[in-house]
Amino acid sequence: MLYPGGKKRVIITNVSPKVEEGRFPAKAVVEQDVIIAADIFSDGHDAIAASAYIRTAGERQWAELPMRFVINDYWQAVFRATQKGMHEFRVTAWVDHYTTWKKGVKKKYDAGQDVRVELQIGAELLRDAASKNKGEADRLNAWAAQLLEFTDPGQGVLLALSNDVAAVMYWHRDRDTITEYPVTYRVEVERKKAGFSTWYELFPRSASPDVSRHGTFRDVAKLLPRIARMGFDVLYFPPIHPIGEVNRKGKNNSLTANPGDPGSPWAIGNRLGGHKAIHPELGSLADFKELIKAAGDHDIEIAMDIAYQCAPDHPYVKQHPQWFTWRPDGTVQYAENPPKKYEDILPFNFETDDWENLWKELKSVVDYWIDAGIRVFRIDNPHTKAFAFWEWMIREVREQYPDVIFLAEAFTRPRVMERLAKAGFNQSYTYFTWRNTKHEIEQYMTELTGTEMRHYFRPNFWPNTPDILPPILTHGGENAHIMRVVLAATLSSNYGLYGPVYEFGINTPHGAKEEYLDNEKYEIKHWEWDQYTRIGDIITRLNRIRRENAALQSTWNIQFAQTSNDQITCYVKIDADADNQLIIVVNLDVYHTQAAHVTLPVGMLGIGHHEPYMVVDLLGGGKYRWVGDINYVELNPYQMPAHIFKVVKLQQHEQ
Amino acid sequence: MLYPGGKKRVIITNVSPKVEEGRFPAKAVVEQDVIIAADIFSDGHDAIAASAYIRTAGERQWAELPMRFVINDYWQAVFRATQKGMHEFRVTAWVDHYTTWKKGVKKKYDAGQDVRVELQIGAELLRDAASKNKGEADRLNAWAAQLLEFTDPGQGVLLALSNDVAAVMYWHRDRDTITEYPVTYRVEVERKKAGFSTWYELFPRSASPDVSRHGTFRDVAKLLPRIARMGFDVLYFPPIHPIGEVNRKGKNNSLTANPGDPGSPWAIGNRLGGHKAIHPELGSLADFKELIKAAGDHDIEIAMDIAYQCAPDHPYVKQHPQWFTWRPDGTVQYAENPPKKYEDILPFNFETDDWENLWKELKSVVDYWIDAGIRVFRIDNPHTKAFAFWEWMIREVREQYPDVIFLAEAFTRPRVMERLAKAGFNQSYTYFTWRNTKHEIEQYMTELTGTEMRHYFRPNFWPNTPDILPPILTHGGENAHIMRVVLAATLSSNYGLYGPVYEFGINTPHGAKEEYLDNEKYEIKHWEWDQYTRIGDIITRLNRIRRENAALQSTWNIQFAQTSNDQITCYVKIDADADNQLIIVVNLDVYHTQAAHVTLPVGMLGIGHHEPYMVVDLLGGGKYRWVGDINYVELNPYQMPAHIFKVVKLQQHEQ
Repeated sequence: MLYPGGKKRVIITNVSPKVEEGRFPAKAVVEQDVIIAADIFSDGHDAIAASAYIRTAGERQWAELPMRFVINDYWQAVFRATQKGMHEFRVTAWVDHYTTWKKGVKKKYDAGQDVRVELQIGAELLRDAASKNKGEADRLNAWAAQLLEFTDPGQGVLLALSNDVAAVMYWHRDRDTITEYPVTYRVEVERKKAGFSTWYELFPRSASPDVSRHGTFRDVAKLLPRIARMGFDVLYFPPIHPIGEVNRKGKNNSLTANPGDPGSPWAIGNRLGGHKAIHPELGSLADFKELIKAAGDHDIEIAMDIAYQCAPDHPYVKQHPQWFTWRPDGTVQYAENPPKKYEDILPFNFETDDWENLWKELKSVVDYWIDAGIRVFRIDNPHTKAFAFWEWMIREVREQYPDVIFLAEAFTRPRVMERLAKAGFNQSYTYFTWRNTKHEIEQYMTELTGTEMRHYFRPNFWPNTPDILPPILTHGGENAHIMRVVLAATLSSNYGLYGPVYEFGINTPHGAKEEYLDNEKYEIKHWEWDQYTRIGDIITRLNRIRRENAALQSTWNIQFAQTSNDQITCYVKIDADADNQLIIVVNLDVYHTQAAHVTLPVGMLGIGHHEPYMVVDLLGGGKYRWVGDINYVELNPYQMPAHIFKVVKLQQHEQ
Repeated sequence: MLYPGGKKRVIITNVSPKVEEGRFPAKAVVEQDVIIAADIFSDGHDAIAASAYIRTAGERQWAELPMRFVINDYWQAVFRATQKGMHEFRVTAWVDHYTTWKKGVKKKYDAGQDVRVELQIGAELLRDAASKNKGEADRLNAWAAQLLEFTDPGQGVLLALSNDVAAVMYWHRDRDTITEYPVTYRVEVERKKAGFSTWYELFPRSASPDVSRHGTFRDVAKLLPRIARMGFDVLYFPPIHPIGEVNRKGKNNSLTANPGDPGSPWAIGNRLGGHKAIHPELGSLADFKELIKAAGDHDIEIAMDIAYQCAPDHPYVKQHPQWFTWRPDGTVQYAENPPKKYEDILPFNFETDDWENLWKELKSVVDYWIDAGIRVFRIDNPHTKAFAFWEWMIREVREQYPDVIFLAEAFTRPRVMERLAKAGFNQSYTYFTWRNTKHEIEQYMTELTGTEMRHYFRPNFWPNTPDILPPILTHGGENAHIMRVVLAATLSSNYGLYGPVYEFGINTPHGAKEEYLDNEKYEIKHWEWDQYTRIGDIITRLNRIRRENAALQSTWNIQFAQTSNDQITCYVKIDADADNQLIIVVNLDVYHTQAAHVTLPVGMLGIGHHEPYMVVDLLGGGKYRWVGDINYVELNPYQMPAHIFKVVKLQQHEQ
């Protein structure tokens, strides 16, 4: 043969969703509509048709989804994911001679041309299909005979156009000329929480109601009703393991610890154990399991921190010296960024010849805590461990436990963060923490939701972390705390807070650093959990609004609206069924009242350019009668820096 | 093994140039700088290094090109193509432990830290390399010994930083941990004319100086000095074959021809022959070959038209009836777009069971004319023939004759035009013909030069064709003809004109159609070739400017400048060596004088923001002293609608 498939005239290209040419699966969650799309076309003017096929990986049978033409050779099929797990899909297309003929005969008939020869051609098409499809041969041959028998060609045209004939011809297409796109792509469907989650971070050791006592898991259990009432569904702890005693850091990250300084939980391991042990003052493994269960009763999941690094006194150093880098002076190489030294932390050497055992051991840490009941992990600094390890480990874990969620704590360069998400991380920390202006926010959201990233990088927006106190929170105080959490909670379906300091508006920086003074990483805190705060109250409202409005449960349904004032950002969020339509308006200026005219994409909302409708503010209360595209907003940051408007059509509203 | 290459820590992604994931080669021309690029990074903070490898397809040896870091994990190597033909390239990268160590020891030494242990580590690195590289073992071991012997650690640091050691360590990297990108991509390097050509189209039958006589190849030969003087280097003819007599079209595309009507040259074939025959009134094959030779003496190549379609009396219809679609009434299916009929044209059926013989015969047409001396083909309506055929045919032809250039005449949908270029067409007609406003021009150029298209779609800009008289030429008259050819000749390194009507400013439309009245496709014209026209004079100047300015010999070096007036477009073109810098300013308003301030990207030009320089107008004459970014322009379309400024630095100018 001159060329394989020389008679296959249809071209399929730009199939999506795909990630890095199919090297990695795209991501979706249960009940999400996955749009399978491609550019599909043929030479000439013939009609074409296309189908997507989808199955869960491992199944033999494919389900066929007819694709429909959208615009400019772009075709799509919508697949609503129902089952968790890896899915595969492929795309096929073919020249649809029957439709070509049908449309031609109709046009010629309408133009008054003689279509008798055309009807003979149609009969041939039907007979040819009959010869190849025994099951439908009788019907097809009967139709063919009818086409030839009609005395009024108009009746032939009517038969040609009938849906029955079209359906049979569609399903019994000519298999010889079907173009099959050569690559099968993958979509991993995850549980809903991978796409919609609300995180609260606290240090269990600071959970004690008694100033003089180390907090325990049991103390945390008592906080569960409060956290649930605020609307959080993931409660994340820094590492809970024994803390290194060698080179322990003191308060404010000082190089020497004073007696009684608890050390950083990220300096993992001491004579009492390592990554599979629990710091005794927090409680026992049984206490921890009980806490996991109690949290479950409040629909809260406990997220554990996994930091693959060791304090110098971690048992691994003696048990597996080959996993570390040894220096000629007989010491283990600590972490460093010359000339800076991090002597309380020993990194693993991922180039060790014993890498396979290292990988297995690191995976066994995750397995251990899965056995204890954990399904959500926040991975510390994944960008300092080999990418290949993550890809292998996450795939292995998720094949066995598809509910497990890994959040990548990588605040690093874009390509690195992208790769970690491709390698399997289900959620990722982001640059949101430093994106403050309208331009920055719109550009970043466009990157996250309008590029290939939308298929694999699931952002989790954090206004703060124990490591990061961004300047806007320092300078903007309570107003900034409220404004930033409104943005996080409405821009991203996954968001989280380093909770107590945020609720209580603590924002004193450590000198010129963008870090908290008297950082909880290095000391035990005492919080007045019962204290009412305006920030906490608004967080509670926000989380309720998120639960009640499906539009806020996806990150990828955002559409920015033009505003006449750069201090005001406005975006529209609409759920998949377009039942829930929100207009969010945020004043980014934490000092001054700002006003703007916003120009809304009313077409998306199903509203006419001069049509009146109601917007009901779910956050600050109040409702307004708006008309068409352009409407006026004004926000005083000392009252409420944002509107979260629900759109209510007047007919609905008047009922 | 848990995972293939588990120790390979470097990630390579987004390798370019690639076309459709490597399915098609990228395109380049001889002497072009091909930028091989990729995103390359590792976990952690180690230094990395990368190399591209390139070879002509079929060679065994690869040439290694070290890649350099540019920005944000983006690395590149520049390959200057010297040889025609298909090339292959691949990308590799590795963690560079020696450089990591070298930088660390330098920083620690500079910070006053004790580096004696570091120097021992360096000695180990050198010894390890020595053990793996016999050829360099002596030198490496000697350096290792030196590192340990120095009493002043500063001397060790100096040795560590020496270029000699770095070079040896670079070339003797640790092979075990090299990441090799799994795909080898291709770049086809073509002769320079594929990237820089100037086309003139004429109908040979209208070349006669005698009104009463059919033009011949010999008449065309007499026009060669004129065409060469105007600066054209490709002379393109519509089909030169016998013209069908059955269903021949008359003047102005009328359905019936009068006696003496010559018919459309695209209705190919009659009893005298088909695609391998010459219309007898044009001359003999010998005349044609002589014309090709004479053209060559003027550095002009003859481009032939290949239209794979047949008049009803083409010999193929009887010889190969299986290549056509037969209707039940015993007639051959003619071309149609129901209810429109094109009864003078029979298309081939590319789904014929005899497709392999059809393909071979169609290729033999090209081979036949290559034998006659033709190396440039303009392919008529390629989008109505199977894509697979083009991919096969062009590849086969170019493997044997890498100088052959195929221009795709497809004015159709974007995805279809893109695919034809991917399938192998070396040049393509474009939408330029209808892109008139500043916004349209900038957007289209950005699409052509700033997306993946830049790697495979080589535009050829035509302000008119025998099929297309765009409204701007009708309404804008001579001014528009001048403005549009300036744009074509300076925006695109390949451009062409349907010559005589353009030079002579003929622009009467056929009723409301965007077509020429009394179209030369259906009748023989007589042109007063000796007549001077301002349009012709400016075309001549433009073509000389193109030859003398390398910046105009690439399409992909364009940078638009901001202008304060939407009627004025301004773009900067700089050649690869930055020796030739042009600023082109065009008044798009053909009726009124327009003025603007243009804001130039002076950084690209190596000019300071307040630095004076000269701009010399190569088109209209005159020179101006400009300063820095923002300068004033004013253009009267009745005088000259454009400046083509050459930038002259003052030092140069004053010499």
